[in-house]
Parts: sequence; C-alpha cells; structure tokens
Amino acid sequence: MKITFAKNALVEATNTVMKAVSNKTTMPILSCILIEAADSGIKMTANDMELAIETKVDGMTIENGKMAVDAKLFSDIIRKLPDGDVEIKGEGEKINIRCEKANFDIAGRNSEDFVSLPVFDTKDYICISEFTLKEVIRQTIFSIAPNDNNKLMTGELFEISGDTLKVVSLDGHRISIRNIKLRDKYEDRKVIVPGKTLTEISRIIPGDAEKDVYIFFSNNYIIFEYGETIVLSRLIDGDYFKVDRMISNDYETKLTLARKDVLDTIDRAMLLVRETDKKPIIFKINDEGMEVSMSTVIGSMKEEVAAEKSGKDLMIGFNPRFLMDAFRAIDDEKVDIYMMNPKSPCFIRDEAGSYIYLILPINFIA
Amino acid sequence: MKITFAKNALVEATNTVMKAVSNKTTMPILSCILIEAADSGIKMTANDMELAIETKVDGMTIENGKMAVDAKLFSDIIRKLPDGDVEIKGEGEKINIRCEKANFDIAGRNSEDFVSLPVFDTKDYICISEFTLKEVIRQTIFSIAPNDNNKLMTGELFEISGDTLKVVSLDGHRISIRNIKLRDKYEDRKVIVPGKTLTEISRIIPGDAEKDVYIFFSNNYIIFEYGETIVLSRLIDGDYFKVDRMISNDYETKLTLARKDVLDTIDRAMLLVRETDKKPIIFKINDEGMEVSMSTVIGSMKEEVAAEKSGKDLMIGFNPRFLMDAFRAIDDEKVDIYMMNPKSPCFIRDEAGSYIYLILPINFIA
Repeated sequence: MKITFAKNALVEATNTVMKAVSNKTTMPILSCILIEAADSGIKMTANDMELAIETKVDGMTIENGKMAVDAKLFSDIIRKLPDGDVEIKGEGEKINIRCEKANFDIAGRNSEDFVSLPVFDTKDYICISEFTLKEVIRQTIFSIAPNDNNKLMTGELFEISGDTLKVVSLDGHRISIRNIKLRDKYEDRKVIVPGKTLTEISRIIPGDAEKDVYIFFSNNYIIFEYGETIVLSRLIDGDYFKVDRMISNDYETKLTLARKDVLDTIDRAMLLVRETDKKPIIFKINDEGMEVSMSTVIGSMKEEVAAEKSGKDLMIGFNPRFLMDAFRAIDDEKVDIYMMNPKSPCFIRDEAGSYIYLILPINFIA
Repeated sequence: MKITFAKNALVEATNTVMKAVSNKTTMPILSCILIEAADSGIKMTANDMELAIETKVDGMTIENGKMAVDAKLFSDIIRKLPDGDVEIKGEGEKINIRCEKANFDIAGRNSEDFVSLPVFDTKDYICISEFTLKEVIRQTIFSIAPNDNNKLMTGELFEISGDTLKVVSLDGHRISIRNIKLRDKYEDRKVIVPGKTLTEISRIIPGDAEKDVYIFFSNNYIIFEYGETIVLSRLIDGDYFKVDRMISNDYETKLTLARKDVLDTIDRAMLLVRETDKKPIIFKINDEGMEVSMSTVIGSMKEEVAAEKSGKDLMIGFNPRFLMDAFRAIDDEKVDIYMMNPKSPCFIRDEAGSYIYLILPINFIA
C-alpha cells in the first residue's frame, strides 16, 4: 500500500484512535493501529477488545492495502515530522515513512491478526449534541466505582424514556443523576456503558454545541458516531440498581448556598486531609447560617459560610471529596441541599429536576 | 508573635524559601520554614543544611517573635486562602492562620531547634545580572554527573580571573564551558558549586537583565544575594579537573550547521532510542553535506542535513542526547563543529570563545 497525507490530518486522526489502544497487553497486535487504504478512502482503527475507534483520514491512496503499526511509535514519529506531506508505504510488514528529508523504516505487524470491529446493524439510536454528551459525562463520571468489585458500578446507566435521557452513576456512597431533554422521542431503552468508554469519548469529541453525536444501541454494544469517527464499546451486562427507590423528596432542613463560596471552603478544609484518614467535614447549620469545620491530626479549621436555611437546625458530617465533586459538577450559582438528619443521605438538586446528587453522611462525634 | 501580610507577598516569599526545604529527611525541623518577626522586619528562612534561603517579606509586625512551621502544609494553606490580609499568630508551638472567614489552627515546631544560617563576613564578591546567571546555569547544568560516584562532577566550577567568569561542568563523556565578561575586574578565585544549588537558584531568580545578583565567596560557602533574598550554599571541597588540558584547537574536519535543522533531525532520531540501548547517531560527512542516520531494534532513519564542510570527509557516531543538550544550550543560528577523527572528541565552539562544548564520540560498526 502507499498513501499520502497532510501531516496535521494524520496527527489528529492518530490521536483520536490512540484512545482505544491497549497499553498493558501481552498481545502486541492490540497495541497497534490498523491503517486501511481503499478506493472509498483511508481508515484508521484501534481496538482493545472493549473499546474500538475508527476514523477516516483525509489523504490520497496511491496503492490500496492495509498495515498494522505500533501505535505509540507511529504517533511519536508522525508528531515530530516536519510540517508537510507524509508518505507511508507498506510492503508486507515493512513500513516506510517519509516527509521531506525525514525517512524512517520501522517494522509493522501482520495486519491479518488485527481484530476487526464487530458488524452492527441497528436502527435504534438517539441524537444529542457533542457538547451535551461531553458535559453529562463530566457531571457524573466521578461517582462510578474505581475498581470492579462490583462490575455494574464501574459503568453508567443510560436510560431513555420518551424524550428524556437519564444518566446515572453510583459507587455505594453517593449517586449522581442527570436528566437531559432530547429533541425527539425515542424508543425506551436501558444500557450500562463502561466508565472507561465514557472517559475516552469525552476526551476525543470536540464538544461543539452545534454538532451532533448519534448514539446507536445493539444488544451488546453502544456506538457513538460523530463527524468521520465511530466509537464502539461493549456494554456491561446486568440489571442496574433501582435508583428511584433510593431517592426521597422529604426533608427537615433545606439550605441554599453560594456554590463558589462553599467550594473554596471545602477546598481549604481538604488541606487537612491525609489519604489514610477519613475525617468528615462538619456542617453546623442554624438560623445564623452555617459553620463549616474540620479537625484532623494535622490541624483544625473553621469558617462561617453564608447560607439561607429553612427547617430544623442540624449538625451533619460528610466526606469533603464527595461534596467537592458534586459542587464542581453543578453550574448553578446557588445550590439547594435537602437534609433529613445526620444519618440520612442529603440531596443536592435543582427545582427543574435536571440533576440530583445524593451523598451519604459520615458519623462523627460532636 | 503576631504578624499580618498581604496574601500575595506571603505566597511569593514562601515559594522562594521552599526551594531549600528538605523533602526527604528524618529530622522534621528540616522540613520547616522559620518565620521571624522583629522590629527590623519579617524574615522567612529554610535550611536543609546544604542550601539555605532567607527572604524578607513585606508585612506588619504586631508582636515580635518567631515560629517554625511545616513548609508544605503552610504553603498549601496560604495558597488556598482568599485574596486578602493574612494574620498569623504563634503561641508556643500553636499557630493560628486567619484570612477573612478562613481560620486554621495547626501545630508548629519548636523554633529553637531550627538551624540558623552560618554567619559570614566576606568582602569577596562578583556582580552579574540575574539574566546572565540564569542563562549560564541553563547552558551548563545538563552536563554535571547525575549521581555522586564522583562528588566533583556533581558541581560546576566557577572560576574568576580578572574580568572573566568561567563556568565549567563535566560528566566524563562531555564538557561544557562558558566564558562571561564581567563589568569589573575581581580577585582570582575558583570554587565548585553544587549542581542542586544552581538548579534551585535558577528557579527562583526572576532573571531580569536590569537587576544584579551579588555572589559572595567564603572558604566553605557561596552566597547569592538579590533583591530581598539571600541564598547560601556549601561549596564542594576539592580540586576541579584540569579542563584546559583536554581542550584542543586542532581539527581535520570543520562543519557549519543550521542549529534548528540539526536539532529537529536529532529529535526525530531519538524516537528510535530506548533507554537500555546505546546506539549512536551517525554523521556521514562529505563534500555534498551530511547524512544523519540511526538504526536500532525499533527501526532505522536517514536524513540529509545541509552543512558547510571544510577539511576531510568523516563518519562519526555520537550519543544523540549529548548533541541535543549542547545544541539546545546554544543560541546562535549557525553552529561550528570541529572534529579530528571518529575516536577523538568533537568541539562545538564559537569564534569569540564564549562557549566550548566537548563531546566524546561513540564507536560504531559502519
């Protein structure tokens, strides 16, 4: 095969597919990118068996063919080439890369070993903007579980009913829920998407509010299609947690806070936290407002934070990291927190129901 | 003691002295900053026994005294305070930090344990601009030895004779020499300054071409004084290598290269280098110019680089990292390289003698 590209198009396409290249693998072919040149155009693909990314690259095919090349080495080389036209030739497993005076010979892999993308044929899809998809991932991804003791918790629920997409993540201590109004009505569907897939896709989609992502569903896969790129991922098998049962609208104390102020205060309190020690940040709420305090082996801090309170006085403790994550995921300037008592979960939610963040409190000795 | 500062002045002073705080120490006092409030002003000091930094901070003393506080914790807290006036109170080893609503109590250390700076009384000094000092460190520091199998190689020679400062570093494979014209004549002197001191000082001096650094010498110490800051370091004891004997002006082949072009080529060649493998980059020099090539287990590359040659044809191999370091340290667009044969060192130097970079070649099989 023989193809030529403008350097920048090649760098961009490589960066995109790199996200599906396996770093830790005993199968060298999984750390490769497949480059295919056909009359229909040039395609680059990476596939780590969980996640696969395929993208078209603007370029010229001089001779059809395909080749598999180590992704990291290939990416390093093309990034450092002079700005100009890049010519790539593949003969068997030998690969030659030229750009102006630069001339590299490297060894590829047998392209027949490359695992192709599963064929999918589904009309079942939804459509949202790149911006919305990127945002909803940012606003929920932090509360998936970091390890897979419980596989379901490492993914996020995507639930479509009518014209609403509900995205849920939970890790046993907290729940994040986002509801998004879609432009159309779609068939009802529930899938669990791996957290890794969502992290990678939010890195590669440009996040344009004017451009759309089509999300297709099949039984085992979810496919994100935008621009010239397709991201395909396995789904997590199983029935997701019945989250609705954990949500309550009752409360004894309601607090309205300026998000920025409370974030700064929590940020300072966290200076006193060391990884091994699980001390809570304590909210002491009464008619005067809220006193935030924290006391650890390192020292102690105390701050008054302006707050509008309705309902009962309350003293309640939280993992400061969980509060921080939730407050960072919200864009509103004023945030409402609903609490029952020092042992029941608090709910951070807006009137419109576009988000609910549930956080379990931590016991403490006053 | 009780003092108040503007937050930004405090952050800046803390960042400066932090460079002399020991990270790995079994003596907790060495990871502390000493804050002293006297009628003469407020001083912050850090001292890891090799390097000490003392700086004055703009602030107001309400009550004289001193205290020692963990540098990292203190720095983290003050950075995250709201922008405003910071009040610090010390009572025994208890320290209270307030800024607007924020209020921290942390434990300090006994300030009597803090090791004061040695008293120095010397009139022996030179004066250069902050910019020049920062530059000369950047242009030589890369060729000190990374480990202290040979203590002398971990430092740099500062040699003053008349109105010239000569700075030398070497690691057994290469030598970097810079000659700087001083504005005055000074007494002759030779000292060996630890590389770590130079690295830290080049991080903290602003690098202003209009502002001066005074460098004082005593028998065991070197002192850098600029603005309101003093940096004091132990010297390395011993007689430095006789570098002049290793320098030669003979050559058989002289090459003039465009620095930027050859840097880009070496940068690309280094993509084929893995840490464990010591393959040279090969320069094949003849009347047509220079062919640069490299061949490793990963692959091979070849590039033509424009070069003006005088003298004999030559094929010679180098550690590409060493060439890279030297070319990066030079600001000239055109660079001259003088070579004798494939086994003798090459010299990269300018006509004016302001720099000499000596690099030993590597044997290779053509």
